Amino acid sequence: MGARGLSPLGVAAIVAAERDAARPEIHDVAESLGRPLRLLSNANGPAALVQAAMPNLAEQPFIAGPVALAVAQLPVDAAAIGRARGKLAVVGLGPGAAEWMAPEARQALDNAQDIVGYETYVRMAGPFAGDQVIHASDNREELDRARHALSLAAGGRSVVVVSSGDPGIFAMGAAVLEALHGSADPAWHGIELTVMPGISAAQGAAARAGAPLGHDFCILSLSDNLKPWEVIEKRLDHAAAADLVMAFYNPISRARPWQLGRALEIVRVHRAPRTPVVLGRDVGRPAESLRVVPLGELKPDDVDMRTVVIIGSSTTTIFPRADGTAWVYTPRWYGAPPPDAGGS
Amino acid sequence: MGARGLSPLGVAAIVAAERDAARPEIHDVAESLGRPLRLLSNANGPAALVQAAMPNLAEQPFIAGPVALAVAQLPVDAAAIGRARGKLAVVGLGPGAAEWMAPEARQALDNAQDIVGYETYVRMAGPFAGDQVIHASDNREELDRARHALSLAAGGRSVVVVSSGDPGIFAMGAAVLEALHGSADPAWHGIELTVMPGISAAQGAAARAGAPLGHDFCILSLSDNLKPWEVIEKRLDHAAAADLVMAFYNPISRARPWQLGRALEIVRVHRAPRTPVVLGRDVGRPAESLRVVPLGELKPDDVDMRTVVIIGSSTTTIFPRADGTAWVYTPRWYGAPPPDAGGS
Repeated sequence: MGARGLSPLGVAAIVAAERDAARPEIHDVAESLGRPLRLLSNANGPAALVQAAMPNLAEQPFIAGPVALAVAQLPVDAAAIGRARGKLAVVGLGPGAAEWMAPEARQALDNAQDIVGYETYVRMAGPFAGDQVIHASDNREELDRARHALSLAAGGRSVVVVSSGDPGIFAMGAAVLEALHGSADPAWHGIELTVMPGISAAQGAAARAGAPLGHDFCILSLSDNLKPWEVIEKRLDHAAAADLVMAFYNPISRARPWQLGRALEIVRVHRAPRTPVVLGRDVGRPAESLRVVPLGELKPDDVDMRTVVIIGSSTTTIFPRADGTAWVYTPRWYGAPPPDAGGS
Repeated sequence: MGARGLSPLGVAAIVAAERDAARPEIHDVAESLGRPLRLLSNANGPAALVQAAMPNLAEQPFIAGPVALAVAQLPVDAAAIGRARGKLAVVGLGPGAAEWMAPEARQALDNAQDIVGYETYVRMAGPFAGDQVIHASDNREELDRARHALSLAAGGRSVVVVSSGDPGIFAMGAAVLEALHGSADPAWHGIELTVMPGISAAQGAAARAGAPLGHDFCILSLSDNLKPWEVIEKRLDHAAAADLVMAFYNPISRARPWQLGRALEIVRVHRAPRTPVVLGRDVGRPAESLRVVPLGELKPDDVDMRTVVIIGSSTTTIFPRADGTAWVYTPRWYGAPPPDAGGS
């Protein structure tokens, strides 16, 4: 540009073909110039891009390799050229409390043009400004929601998909990637996609109880909606035999009434009846409750679909809190305690 | 108080014996009156508490059961009576980036009088105000740090223990509870102890890669400092046989050079060479890097102590990103994909 007697300050926009939307070098240029990137879907190559973006150009553009430099006689409105690169952030709200939501997620929610999600979570994620478009669905069709969000972003919008907890743990992260993987549309693949982590439900429940996840653990979903029940039984058996602390997601529902009871039978083969179990219900929400019960006394009726169940390992320890309840933790050591260990 | 012609607005302080510091009813009273709770360590029972708190009282206190109401002639300085109830918050910074730290943790750090932690994490948690006392240790003696923090809080201070990630996952949460469990000191048990969850390192690495933890998974530490290596081998074998996605913490160090290689041998018995492995190094920190390699090509030399290793299950899928790197996710389903599945 210097050679042409032009200042970088005079650049109105970087214009690129949609199929190149994700190329890092284009973003480097736009970022270093601090100017907007605009995408065109029906033009490829520098001459065609200039023609489509600025059809009434007085001067021929300078073309050097894959880059064209077009000089307009009048100021250019970048927003009138093509569209912006769409953004999709898959955001985790955490268990519910605002004080547990990462600032990154809060900022993405505040800046989004469109918010897509299951109604309950969208309500938790608000309030939103009047010009933000809410797409709240009342069903659990995760893949439909994911596709809807991707198509909005592919149209140049800035979109957030809302998950509770961590979107990467039994939540919308996998659904969005599955939907993207299943599409051949370059506009979908060209968006700026970010997964923003959050605190998952088991972490909230564990924190309230003490530190039951302080050593090797697993998180298993007991839902057999999308996996065979035999796989769940096999995983339970291995995890119990490995003496891992276990957190159960989706432990029970009206449509899955017997599965938790069967899961507990499997676990009880390997774990003593006095093993502490943490039941965290709605942790991080106003109706939060926490119970600690011995494995031998736990009944499926103690659990509902809003409960996270954490089953201790052979080393998970319980001791009284001064307020009459109990602390639960899994020590840092296994087998023989180190000479300096704190608990018995 | 009404019966005595006194207004609740005139209450200067609620005074209680140290051994009762955690009793919920005392906090209910202090909270509903909006007045400070002060603790005395050397007096028990209402008459003794009044005598210790206000030795020069002109009038006899009203005593009703366990409660005494003492009326002073002059305004009372609550801060001069005994001490406050100490607080200890075990705080998770998340992987490193400020945008991933929960607001609750940030507020606890900002409000603490004392900050206790491993030097690196204390530095990450700052900046701190001039009147905040920093207790940064340069060693890894977790139990010593925990005891130090508990004893500061037991003296009436407001203390934070700093962990990276989630303090409940291979971090200071279990150490603090172990130290508390090992103490018979009622002052230690009387403090207000809170574990504040955070985003753990595996979650940050998973988010950058896509959603490899989108289905059943486990987190295992490969460190045999505090558990026998045979236990680790057994757990690896079960977790691999159960086809769980696995995240490894403490995968390798100078003092533990061969363990990761042995762990990979065990995993390779059960998993195909093309299984995607995510290597997230310093994710959420300035030097962040992310690699995705097939299990068959992974070498222990690709990993150092600041790397989180996430090994996919048989369903974990990889597909190209438009920027030339790869997305990794573990689908929501297992076995036969549902009719509407997105990928492959």
